[in-house]
Amino acid sequence: MPAALIQHPFMSAEGLSACHGQALVEAMLAFELALAEVQEAEGALPAGTSQRLRECLAAHAFDLDALAAGVASGGNVAIPFVKQARAALPADLKRYFHQGATSQDVVDSALMLLLKPRLACLDALLLRCRAAGIALMQAHDQSVMVGRTLMQQALPTTFGVRVAQWTLGLEQARRRLAGIALPVQFGGAVGVHSGWDELGLAFMDGIAERLGLAAPVLPWHTDRQPIHALGTALDAAAGAAEKLALDVSLLTQTELGEVAEPAGEGMGESSSMPHKRNPVRCALIRGAARQVHGHTTVLLNAAAQPLERGLGEWHAEWTPLIDGALLLEGALEQAAVLLEGLEVNAEAMRRNLAVTGGAIMAEPVSRLLAPVVGQDAAKRIAAEAAETARREGRGYAEVLAEHDEIQGQVAAEELARACDPGLYIGSSRQQVKRAVRWLEQD
Amino acid sequence: MPAALIQHPFMSAEGLSACHGQALVEAMLAFELALAEVQEAEGALPAGTSQRLRECLAAHAFDLDALAAGVASGGNVAIPFVKQARAALPADLKRYFHQGATSQDVVDSALMLLLKPRLACLDALLLRCRAAGIALMQAHDQSVMVGRTLMQQALPTTFGVRVAQWTLGLEQARRRLAGIALPVQFGGAVGVHSGWDELGLAFMDGIAERLGLAAPVLPWHTDRQPIHALGTALDAAAGAAEKLALDVSLLTQTELGEVAEPAGEGMGESSSMPHKRNPVRCALIRGAARQVHGHTTVLLNAAAQPLERGLGEWHAEWTPLIDGALLLEGALEQAAVLLEGLEVNAEAMRRNLAVTGGAIMAEPVSRLLAPVVGQDAAKRIAAEAAETARREGRGYAEVLAEHDEIQGQVAAEELARACDPGLYIGSSRQQVKRAVRWLEQD
Amino acid sequence: MPAALIQHPFMSAEGLSACHGQALVEAMLAFELALAEVQEAEGALPAGTSQRLRECLAAHAFDLDALAAGVASGGNVAIPFVKQARAALPADLKRYFHQGATSQDVVDSALMLLLKPRLACLDALLLRCRAAGIALMQAHDQSVMVGRTLMQQALPTTFGVRVAQWTLGLEQARRRLAGIALPVQFGGAVGVHSGWDELGLAFMDGIAERLGLAAPVLPWHTDRQPIHALGTALDAAAGAAEKLALDVSLLTQTELGEVAEPAGEGMGESSSMPHKRNPVRCALIRGAARQVHGHTTVLLNAAAQPLERGLGEWHAEWTPLIDGALLLEGALEQAAVLLEGLEVNAEAMRRNLAVTGGAIMAEPVSRLLAPVVGQDAAKRIAAEAAETARREGRGYAEVLAEHDEIQGQVAAEELARACDPGLYIGSSRQQVKRAVRWLEQD
Amino acid sequence: MPAALIQHPFMSAEGLSACHGQALVEAMLAFELALAEVQEAEGALPAGTSQRLRECLAAHAFDLDALAAGVASGGNVAIPFVKQARAALPADLKRYFHQGATSQDVVDSALMLLLKPRLACLDALLLRCRAAGIALMQAHDQSVMVGRTLMQQALPTTFGVRVAQWTLGLEQARRRLAGIALPVQFGGAVGVHSGWDELGLAFMDGIAERLGLAAPVLPWHTDRQPIHALGTALDAAAGAAEKLALDVSLLTQTELGEVAEPAGEGMGESSSMPHKRNPVRCALIRGAARQVHGHTTVLLNAAAQPLERGLGEWHAEWTPLIDGALLLEGALEQAAVLLEGLEVNAEAMRRNLAVTGGAIMAEPVSRLLAPVVGQDAAKRIAAEAAETARREGRGYAEVLAEHDEIQGQVAAEELARACDPGLYIGSSRQQVKRAVRWLEQD
Repeated sequence: MPAALIQHPFMSAEGLSACHGQALVEAMLAFELALAEVQEAEGALPAGTSQRLRECLAAHAFDLDALAAGVASGGNVAIPFVKQARAALPADLKRYFHQGATSQDVVDSALMLLLKPRLACLDALLLRCRAAGIALMQAHDQSVMVGRTLMQQALPTTFGVRVAQWTLGLEQARRRLAGIALPVQFGGAVGVHSGWDELGLAFMDGIAERLGLAAPVLPWHTDRQPIHALGTALDAAAGAAEKLALDVSLLTQTELGEVAEPAGEGMGESSSMPHKRNPVRCALIRGAARQVHGHTTVLLNAAAQPLERGLGEWHAEWTPLIDGALLLEGALEQAAVLLEGLEVNAEAMRRNLAVTGGAIMAEPVSRLLAPVVGQDAAKRIAAEAAETARREGRGYAEVLAEHDEIQGQVAAEELARACDPGLYIGSSRQQVKRAVRWLEQD
Repeated sequence: MPAALIQHPFMSAEGLSACHGQALVEAMLAFELALAEVQEAEGALPAGTSQRLRECLAAHAFDLDALAAGVASGGNVAIPFVKQARAALPADLKRYFHQGATSQDVVDSALMLLLKPRLACLDALLLRCRAAGIALMQAHDQSVMVGRTLMQQALPTTFGVRVAQWTLGLEQARRRLAGIALPVQFGGAVGVHSGWDELGLAFMDGIAERLGLAAPVLPWHTDRQPIHALGTALDAAAGAAEKLALDVSLLTQTELGEVAEPAGEGMGESSSMPHKRNPVRCALIRGAARQVHGHTTVLLNAAAQPLERGLGEWHAEWTPLIDGALLLEGALEQAAVLLEGLEVNAEAMRRNLAVTGGAIMAEPVSRLLAPVVGQDAAKRIAAEAAETARREGRGYAEVLAEHDEIQGQVAAEELARACDPGLYIGSSRQQVKRAVRWLEQD
Repeated sequence: MPAALIQHPFMSAEGLSACHGQALVEAMLAFELALAEVQEAEGALPAGTSQRLRECLAAHAFDLDALAAGVASGGNVAIPFVKQARAALPADLKRYFHQGATSQDVVDSALMLLLKPRLACLDALLLRCRAAGIALMQAHDQSVMVGRTLMQQALPTTFGVRVAQWTLGLEQARRRLAGIALPVQFGGAVGVHSGWDELGLAFMDGIAERLGLAAPVLPWHTDRQPIHALGTALDAAAGAAEKLALDVSLLTQTELGEVAEPAGEGMGESSSMPHKRNPVRCALIRGAARQVHGHTTVLLNAAAQPLERGLGEWHAEWTPLIDGALLLEGALEQAAVLLEGLEVNAEAMRRNLAVTGGAIMAEPVSRLLAPVVGQDAAKRIAAEAAETARREGRGYAEVLAEHDEIQGQVAAEELARACDPGLYIGSSRQQVKRAVRWLEQD
Repeated sequence: MPAALIQHPFMSAEGLSACHGQALVEAMLAFELALAEVQEAEGALPAGTSQRLRECLAAHAFDLDALAAGVASGGNVAIPFVKQARAALPADLKRYFHQGATSQDVVDSALMLLLKPRLACLDALLLRCRAAGIALMQAHDQSVMVGRTLMQQALPTTFGVRVAQWTLGLEQARRRLAGIALPVQFGGAVGVHSGWDELGLAFMDGIAERLGLAAPVLPWHTDRQPIHALGTALDAAAGAAEKLALDVSLLTQTELGEVAEPAGEGMGESSSMPHKRNPVRCALIRGAARQVHGHTTVLLNAAAQPLERGLGEWHAEWTPLIDGALLLEGALEQAAVLLEGLEVNAEAMRRNLAVTGGAIMAEPVSRLLAPVVGQDAAKRIAAEAAETARREGRGYAEVLAEHDEIQGQVAAEELARACDPGLYIGSSRQQVKRAVRWLEQD
């Protein structure tokens, strides 16, 4: 797999180094040992058994290649894992290992254990985004820029509000992720703790507690609502990062130049064009987010699994979940760096406010003129003057002031005020305040 | 559009009759009138204006064909709607209509208003499913059936647990949907209430209150997290219904026959084969759910929208949201009927428990025999006897009792007990109790 | 359904008017009558029967509401359709109608019949795009503009090449669609022409011929490769149109202004901002294309259908196919208009070539200087001069000529040539020629 | 990455071992050396240069970790690759390496080179499937089994036809894949061969020829139709394999038992249930195919890329393409094994034909009785007798013969014939012949 060269760059290096084959084996082992401990505590294993299991297996070096080879015949990694583990145990312990469990118990629980620290890292990254976003929006709550709808210049806004929108999106995704439960899986062969009766649910709850996972109502072998909730929450965060990257890409365009990715040694350089600085972080975020959407689509279509165990639907979840989380973590690392180091070019924002000559202020101007010359004439004059200003490269207020039909009828300073984008930013400042208040609530 | 013949059958008739063009117009009008009332209350309109607007427009018959025709040039229905409304107003009122609003304010808010009663209906349907599920799982908490993993017979379970799984899935989806906020949209041209300053946010909150929608932190023109949360919550419920339909389809297979869809005049009949009763409700649910997944995929890929207004991404959301909700409502109507009237064939469940001769009980049998003949011999004997029983059509316990190697060494009644699926249902009954407890919590 | 206001604007009006419930009924009837004619020709019906059937049914007014109501119980529209038709027939004819056919034969064939003229219209639209594209690329094969990679200015290209790329994309999609076969469906209840033996395949081929559909190798009730091929070919064309719309949206941005959508009465106007002209056609194309991708995702996930008939998978195909085709047709109508009437602003292209001061020409300049001052110095000087030119608003060649380190060492005209974007357009003109040659080949 | 344990088992081992980081580096190098050779042949490099480049670099050990590390700053692997390569070259050669190329030229061409042998392997696997399918369908062209629609028993068919359907699906996918062109990419920085004029296209064609790739009309940096065609063709084959796996899963169910996956050491065993043989190959195919659909969805949504280079859209393609191909290859390896070694249980097929007592033959029976007792009575009698036969476990013909209303009116042998599924298989045998003819055509 050329994954290291074409896939890992989109992922979190920290995530990748935590989330490998060995870690999966350790997670499976943690599940089995917790199961044994709980069973011992409930009297279902001879005293001391779980400790002996731990001692035998903690130091055991599992053969990952053999595990990988064994997946194909059993269909999942728990089967060769249990075989290897049992082979490493003294005869009298073998039957106490994996007792009452089924492969899906091991794999689902191990995946949840792998994902738990990833969710913590995602939360931390989103908190970094939040802090950086708050700082940026407060610093720019009076940085006037043009708002663009359908990618056309519309009316003034502030960069603070733009940042507030990014930050609110990311924080909504963070809160959604924070509400996701990672449940333990334990139900045995068909999900009813065959042979264990009422102890079964006690085992399930006990393992959850020991592993720091959530205790589900029942085993959820083919109730994949928890996976759907998790996968779509990851996707939401990917979408929030993607929105940031899309906007930064647009504002970074050569002709706009209002923001730039943080400079960095070699970042975004082109091999052939010395003048170029590519928005590489945005490309990585967008590349990652789109792949997350693809993985999530797999999960949407795998929510319904047959009877007591999926036949491919379950198997299809594993990589989308893990890769989805690692891609998102990669995207959020980039998002945090972007927000923490974004270069903001207030001069370019001012320049762009002027490129239409003033047409973006035609609305307040015509509101001002309407009582004087009537609504239709007001609109016409506002538009004509903007066109003249743009063509001649002069100020909008100045051109307006000279206009025959209004000369002397409107005070110059009133005209100047109506033409000033900085005086037409609506609730921008209140919006930043309100957003900060909400962001800091939790 | 042949929608009536190929799409509407998957949808809710009630939903379809509530969710039409006229209803969208009324929702847009409700938004505009609420805006005017709030503005009047805040002193931004002359006293009495909002009442006059309401009187002029409440009775106005909007021309839906003209609205439809006008969408193409403006890109959304709010533009021709505002034009028609203004044309119907006396000159002095025209400028007070839609004051400070932008098209997206109208359309997003109107869609939320259309969806609000749909969410209420979805909740009601899911509550019907819950009630029917609870009744069914309690009635069948001792109905033993075979559990099937990877669609192969595995070990006994109960039908009560199977139903509990369906019901838990649906209820998780219900609670997720119940937590979804439908926010009002109001931000004006670029989302900062241009020209209204601090009043803008007050307007927004006021409209939300009047319309019974949630007040967002800020306008969310291109922060589509609310749409993502809504769309994926709808999808989760579709997945939960799809799981029910998949299982019923499988259990209804001619050779299994453990359940059947509720009989109904003409339901599931085949034009050519008199003996057939097709699981039509399952087909409709599965057909609907798959389309919901497609619509949701659109929403996943539209979460990132450029700057202050989407350029196609926003437009792409409308139909997936509305059709997604109506398809889900259709699926849940079928799911409720299924759960309320499902025919359960306990006799078939018993018959199917026996088709392997007893092999599904080989695990408890070999556990019983292991202390007597050793583990390997126990496994071998358990398997051989099952094969004999299946081939000769005899009882497993009977065949075992005659086996040379164990004759006289294990009490017949112990053998009988180990071979009895009804005595090997683990925590099934506790699971039903626990599930009911959780289901009734909320 | 508010479809008329939120969905139909993305679709083709012509397509919508051709593709309605009545048309589906007519297509089903055409299938049944062709079947009867073929059976009569093969001696499987009494002479004159098919003519009598046609006479009885051609004039029959099917009750569409009753058909719609009947779908829910049977799961597809063929069931109530056959009932209505038989009810309208004299007793002796009833059994000759729908003889040997199954519902899926009728529905699949009818959908193919509905789609056939749509594919013809798609082809015609794509040919319009091709003709307009060829004209535009030839007209602009020397219109120099800046090429943008990762949305940053890179090096010069021509608008002719940009158009060639759009046109090649659309034409590839056209040829792919042109290769799609629309097969008739005819297999009877389980796909083997039960009761008809070797006549079955002859019937199938005969109906195909009469209806102008392709004859498949075998009935394809659950071999959905034909649907996959069709659906993904539609999606490819949607992607090609979406590429055009994305580029036009970007080039239309206020700050770039290199192209504009064709002007049209009311097109793209904003209700509040007189200066705005929104790229509405691009928004409609992008909105449609994204929905097509969602529909196609349904088809990807429905390619595997169980045994002899889908249980929901088949049902899930109908709307995605029809809506997908109509959305694509809508998108291509817009694309054709865009290409036929695109406003090209060569002045803006020239202006944008200059916004970096000359940095986009730094590569050829440093190539020119390298032999004189060494490669490193050449790069440095090229970059410095561009920065100076940009800051001072002067010409790049002029600033370079004054540079201390090269003064007098490079001829002014050589410098001027290296700085001229119009002399650095590589194979642009050859590309246009080659593209036209390929486009006109078929 | 725990990919080895959760992802690779779904992939082809051969594919994985061919498709790794080193192979990608070699493919990039092959592209660069072909470029140099072509440039030398066209006089654009000093004679002997390409040979010297080859000698310097063929033996060079690229540092893959450093390449991986370098991706993040440049956004793709070509940038650090070119740096490493140049660093390994003598000073006078550096500038001749990667001359006139851009990163996307290198990466796209290298991916096509990686995929070329994969497509060859996919073709070989699909030919294996075809050969095995033909053998199986011919062997079973008279193996009568019950056809099942909506997963309900319907009417008889043959296993030969079932296999023909699988084989036709796979072969359609094979032919579609065989028609896919893998084009070289070569356009330079903005796709117009800046600085090379008419030589550019000659270079492009020459590299294609040397590398055994297709020559595109023009560079296709942001015309992703070739990727769409490739990705969706891979998806079609995944769907065809998935259909096979779905059917085998269904027919393998314990209660049906009509087929079984080929037995194999340890294949499908359960750790806890000795009697179980899980359809693991089906699970792996279905798990892989669903992931392919997710990857394909990414490609559908990435078909539109901005201006001269994607900003994330391109980057998002790499893994879906490679992983998609490897997952498909894994699925087809399983499919070939399934078809080559499928265990067919004709006895079970016969048994299942009888489980409805005869109801599946009610249609031909009522056709036989209609002329004697009238159509309504015929239907009623046919159904009643089937119910009796099923309940009493007797033969349908026998029960019918005793029926009061028809006793003595229909010859016993006629009744027997109408009740014999083996005489009611329609065009089954002709279908197998016709399918074989088509399959062997190409």
